[in-house]
Amino acid sequence: MGERIIFDEAFRARLHELFIWRRDVRRFRRDALPAGALDRLIETACLGPSVGLSQPWRFVTVDDPLRRAAVIEAFRAANAEALAAYSGERAERYARLKLAGLAEAPGHLALFTDRSTEVGHGLGRRSMPETAEYSAVAAITIMWLAARAEGIGMGWVSILDPARVAAILEVPADWRFIGYFCLGYPESEEDRPELERAGWAERRGAREFILRR
Amino acid sequence: MGERIIFDEAFRARLHELFIWRRDVRRFRRDALPAGALDRLIETACLGPSVGLSQPWRFVTVDDPLRRAAVIEAFRAANAEALAAYSGERAERYARLKLAGLAEAPGHLALFTDRSTEVGHGLGRRSMPETAEYSAVAAITIMWLAARAEGIGMGWVSILDPARVAAILEVPADWRFIGYFCLGYPESEEDRPELERAGWAERRGAREFILRR
Repeated sequence: MGERIIFDEAFRARLHELFIWRRDVRRFRRDALPAGALDRLIETACLGPSVGLSQPWRFVTVDDPLRRAAVIEAFRAANAEALAAYSGERAERYARLKLAGLAEAPGHLALFTDRSTEVGHGLGRRSMPETAEYSAVAAITIMWLAARAEGIGMGWVSILDPARVAAILEVPADWRFIGYFCLGYPESEEDRPELERAGWAERRGAREFILRR
Repeated sequence: MGERIIFDEAFRARLHELFIWRRDVRRFRRDALPAGALDRLIETACLGPSVGLSQPWRFVTVDDPLRRAAVIEAFRAANAEALAAYSGERAERYARLKLAGLAEAPGHLALFTDRSTEVGHGLGRRSMPETAEYSAVAAITIMWLAARAEGIGMGWVSILDPARVAAILEVPADWRFIGYFCLGYPESEEDRPELERAGWAERRGAREFILRR
C-alpha cells in the first residue's frame, strides 16, 4: 500500500496505560454486557495473527444455564484437587483466594483450536503444530485488550479439566481446549494483579527474564 | 483502588486500527532499532497476563552473528522439509513465498518458557500446565502491538526445529521453545496479511468460528 499509518506519542502513552490496567478479573458486577458486545469482541479477536493464516480459533459462547452450572461445578472439582496439593499456610492462603468469577460474570466464553483445519494449507505448522494453540492465545489477548478499552473485564479460568469442559459444551472431538473466559464489568479497576494484592506472589523485573546470546 | 480509568472513543478507534495494521512482517529495512528498544519492548511484554503470576516467559536476545547464521540455516532446513511436503502447483507457490526476514531484520529474539519455575507456586497450572506457554504467547502479543505502535514490525518464525534452536542458543535443557521473532522497520505498511496478498489463503468472517451453547 505504501500508506503511512502513524500512531503518535499520546496514543502510545495511552496504550501503555491499557497494558498496565488490563487485569485478570475475578470480581464482576452482574450488569449484562451490551447487546452484541461479545460477538463484536470475537470479531476483533479474529484480527489477531494466526500461523499460516489458518485461523484455528474456535469460540464457544455459553449461555445455557445448565451448561454454565456444569462448568462452575467442573471448576469447583478442579479447584478442590488443586487445593489438596498444597499444605499448611500455603493451603490456607489458597483457600482464601477468589480464582474465578464464573457465578457473577454475565459473559461466558470458551476457546478451542481445531488443528485439523485445512485453512492455510498447513503452512508454518509442520515442525511446530502447537502454533495453532498459540494463534488462539494471541487472538484472545487482543480481545482482552479491546474489552478492557471498553471497560469490560475478562478473567481466564484454567483450573478446569479440558476433557470435562469439552464434554459439557459438546464440541467436536478433536478440538483442543485453550481456556474458559468470564466477561463483565469489574467491581473495581486495578493496576496490580489480584494475586499480587493478595500477597500470593509478586511480579519480577523484566531483567530477570532476559538471556543474551 | 476505585480509580476510574476511561479509554475514550477516539482511543478505541485508534486501537482498532492498530489491530488492523499489525502484521506478521517478513520484509524489513536494514536500519538498526533505536538503542534499548528491544529491552524496553520486553519490559512491556512483561505487563502481559501469566498463569498464577508465574511469569514463565524467558526472552533470549540474539546478537551473536554465528548464532544468527545458525538460526537462518535451521530455518532453511525446516523450510526445505516443509516444501517437500507439498506437490504440484501448491509446492511452486510455497517456494515463491517469503516466509521470514531473518537475514535483514536488525532484531532477533527467541521466546521460551520455563515450566519448572516456582514463581506463583504452581497456581492455575495443575490441570493445564500448557498455560505456561499460553502466558508467554500473551506477552509476546502485547509486545507485538507495542512495537507496531512505534512503527517497528515483528515477524514470528515457526518454521524451525525447536530442539535445534535450543541447542544453538544454549538455553537450559527444560525450557520450551515458543517462537523466534524478527524485529525491525517494515519495508511497507499493510492492512492485509502477506499470505492473503500472495493468494495463499484468505481470512474468513468471525461468524464461521463461533459456536453457540
